[in-house]
Amino acid sequence: MFSEDLSGRKAVFKRDLKRTEGYHMGGSELEKYLEENRERHLEELKDFLRIPSISALEENAGDMLNAAQWLEKHLAAAGMENVEVIEGEGHPMVYAQWLHAPNRPTMLVYGHYDVQPVDPLERWESPPFEPTVRKGNDGEDLYARGSSDDKGQLFAIIKAVEALIKTREKIPVNIKFLVEGEEEVGSRSIIEYTRQNQGSLDADVTLISDTAILSPKQPCITYGLRGIWAGELIVRGPDTDLHSGLYGGVIHNPVQALAEIISSMHDDRGRVIIEGFHDDVRDIPVPERKMLSQVPYGEKEIKQESGVGELYGDPVYTPLERIGAQPTLEINGIRGGFSGTGFKTVIPAEASAKISCRLVPEQDPEHIGRLLRKHIDRVTPPTVTAELKPFAGMKAALVDPELPEIQAAVRAYKRSFGTEPVFTLSGGGIPVATLFLEELDSPVILMGFGLPDDNLHAPNEKIHIPNFYRGIRAAVYFMEELRDI
Amino acid sequence: MFSEDLSGRKAVFKRDLKRTEGYHMGGSELEKYLEENRERHLEELKDFLRIPSISALEENAGDMLNAAQWLEKHLAAAGMENVEVIEGEGHPMVYAQWLHAPNRPTMLVYGHYDVQPVDPLERWESPPFEPTVRKGNDGEDLYARGSSDDKGQLFAIIKAVEALIKTREKIPVNIKFLVEGEEEVGSRSIIEYTRQNQGSLDADVTLISDTAILSPKQPCITYGLRGIWAGELIVRGPDTDLHSGLYGGVIHNPVQALAEIISSMHDDRGRVIIEGFHDDVRDIPVPERKMLSQVPYGEKEIKQESGVGELYGDPVYTPLERIGAQPTLEINGIRGGFSGTGFKTVIPAEASAKISCRLVPEQDPEHIGRLLRKHIDRVTPPTVTAELKPFAGMKAALVDPELPEIQAAVRAYKRSFGTEPVFTLSGGGIPVATLFLEELDSPVILMGFGLPDDNLHAPNEKIHIPNFYRGIRAAVYFMEELRDI
Repeated sequence: MFSEDLSGRKAVFKRDLKRTEGYHMGGSELEKYLEENRERHLEELKDFLRIPSISALEENAGDMLNAAQWLEKHLAAAGMENVEVIEGEGHPMVYAQWLHAPNRPTMLVYGHYDVQPVDPLERWESPPFEPTVRKGNDGEDLYARGSSDDKGQLFAIIKAVEALIKTREKIPVNIKFLVEGEEEVGSRSIIEYTRQNQGSLDADVTLISDTAILSPKQPCITYGLRGIWAGELIVRGPDTDLHSGLYGGVIHNPVQALAEIISSMHDDRGRVIIEGFHDDVRDIPVPERKMLSQVPYGEKEIKQESGVGELYGDPVYTPLERIGAQPTLEINGIRGGFSGTGFKTVIPAEASAKISCRLVPEQDPEHIGRLLRKHIDRVTPPTVTAELKPFAGMKAALVDPELPEIQAAVRAYKRSFGTEPVFTLSGGGIPVATLFLEELDSPVILMGFGLPDDNLHAPNEKIHIPNFYRGIRAAVYFMEELRDI
Repeated sequence: MFSEDLSGRKAVFKRDLKRTEGYHMGGSELEKYLEENRERHLEELKDFLRIPSISALEENAGDMLNAAQWLEKHLAAAGMENVEVIEGEGHPMVYAQWLHAPNRPTMLVYGHYDVQPVDPLERWESPPFEPTVRKGNDGEDLYARGSSDDKGQLFAIIKAVEALIKTREKIPVNIKFLVEGEEEVGSRSIIEYTRQNQGSLDADVTLISDTAILSPKQPCITYGLRGIWAGELIVRGPDTDLHSGLYGGVIHNPVQALAEIISSMHDDRGRVIIEGFHDDVRDIPVPERKMLSQVPYGEKEIKQESGVGELYGDPVYTPLERIGAQPTLEINGIRGGFSGTGFKTVIPAEASAKISCRLVPEQDPEHIGRLLRKHIDRVTPPTVTAELKPFAGMKAALVDPELPEIQAAVRAYKRSFGTEPVFTLSGGGIPVATLFLEELDSPVILMGFGLPDDNLHAPNEKIHIPNFYRGIRAAVYFMEELRDI
């Protein structure tokens, strides 16, 4: 039995059965397998989510290896071959392959098993590493850190492969998995590894399921991701924290100076006003603006998801254009002085802010870092010193929606979700999308199963359970559709 | 034998012996007692400093009681009577008295046994609660949290009383001690207690040793303290932390908004530009400006102490005037988003800053809080919300330097330090100075033994050991000088 959430699927499934006649495909044994193993697949995902694989925190280093080894075991059990944990200086990667489809395309599957930190912990309704099912508006959701970003989405593809191998003993295409544990901290190891192993990673297409669709039944294909430059700005004043009574009035407070520097980076309408920042930003072509305007995601949806009373940003662009096709500068964190309970009347010795810029195609992260440094040098008064420490950078990624591989994904989504996907831009970034585009010279297909309100990087991250199951099917269909392109 | 640091003292001592002929005073038995007990007095101070009586932190609540009981025992051992730990809702106070000098003035001694938090702990050269002696430029220093603010200074007065009682069986004046444990967190209990016990706290003069002198041999009398208003500014944006890629460009980042609000509070020359903020600030009278200009403390000394390259603040006033006679607004701490190791690309749900304003006489803390709230309401954009939570407030304190009680302190300093004290203003505040001035209607004498580079409220707090010993003598002489005024 299908759950009510899949009720719209059957009609579509029939229509697509005609379209794909001649393919060795589902409906029968594979569908039965997926139905019979529903509960087990969800329980296994929960096991995966219980491992607190937070890549940013040193204390979780052991959990990173545990998660990699868990995946290794799991990929092997699914029928994948040459499964291997690749250990190096950073967090380990996991590789696996199945290459028994001669003369068929080879698909590289990328995912990441690392997750974001969980603070503020007190805002989680259930513990971040105790996966908990709660009823939502439109079916059940599974709450846990990493449920949507990216363990749940990656796991759907693994289950698709498992179902194909277990029921048919073969996959329609050749397949390679490369899963990393450093996506949330800059992807250093996989960047190095990919550059050194272009030959063995060779593929005709890369599949990444690490994006959101618009609503549980409205899939979308993300054809562009923003790039990023990230760094830390440290403002230093006196040698040591000073008594604010004894020195207040003669020492420039570094927190205040930091705030003053930060406040010089945007104008009143929310546009970044660092000199040269917008020089390389492409104009959004009119047809693309038109395509984007059809995406049912704008002011109303963003207000509802975020709870803010008014949106921010340059009104020259629509919200979706600002998210997908315009660069930003964000303060991801700030600290300085005493911020515990009570009061400590100090002028702190220093204050710092984590800054990241989301970049659009043609913007070069290193150049953006230099422009930011120049701006900071210009606005920093002689009463303090400012240091900008670069942390990571990557270019934006853009894929042509007309490519046959993208059209295969369109058909797979239609078959699984019952709805034609729309095309959209994501404001987030996936370092390896840029990497694979540049190093492997093959199209990157961003076929996600997350939702906009999944609370990525925030408390109460979730995955919509019906979409987890739809995602397994979409991955099966994508491999089928890819077979003959 | 006197240490070399006291070498200048003898000549002065002789001159003053003449002046104070007829008084039953030192040189002989009392001096001998102080010399013989030097080491013990320092060791006892170390014991006091080992108690981590941080009033701001809940986890140190037990240490607060320990410190109060330690003082109780110690005051009794010194010969004080009616010694009592006064427990209430907040941290306990300690009271003690000796009232066997009929027809002589009564002196109330105030001090506080609570200390500031110690973070950043990693910047301490020796652990904050393991008192450590290190050689300085001008004699030895004792490093520990609270060594100067205020345990060391309070303890000097207790040792003066002990020496008088042990060697002469009497004190020249009647004396009451009231020591609190909430000075660093708003002095709530003692304010309440003083208002309800004006009768039993009745005194002709209050002595507070909780200020700094200019250099080891240049005493000064602080005739004014700044008041304070303190509160927390919380800026809220989305309901939860958001992915900065998916929402960057359409949500006003609360850290950025907080920075923008903070940056609206000062102009380029460092003057607070909150409307009405300076309305009640008194003009500094010309004779007072002249007196202050004689204090050998200015740009050079402040740069040396703080390590900054350039001073901050309104150049219309000298540094000392800006510290003592002008109000300020400081950001004592700020936090928001992720500030650990690595990176977390979020738009945080909220960000907050601890703000305090140092106030001069005539400025009303509550009124200042209202002006600040009005300013914040005016500058906060509709894309975020801002809340200002008041924490504590107190008025500034000013005492006429011509008062006979102050002149008694002048003579006591001269006898102990060998140098005429200068008059200065302090930028810090002591809540009970304001309280005693207003509630007990008796002059408050700020006769401190700290130094400007004692690192109050900062890592590596210290007391200059020769000044601890000079402080004991200054307290003895002050009681003698006070006897006949």
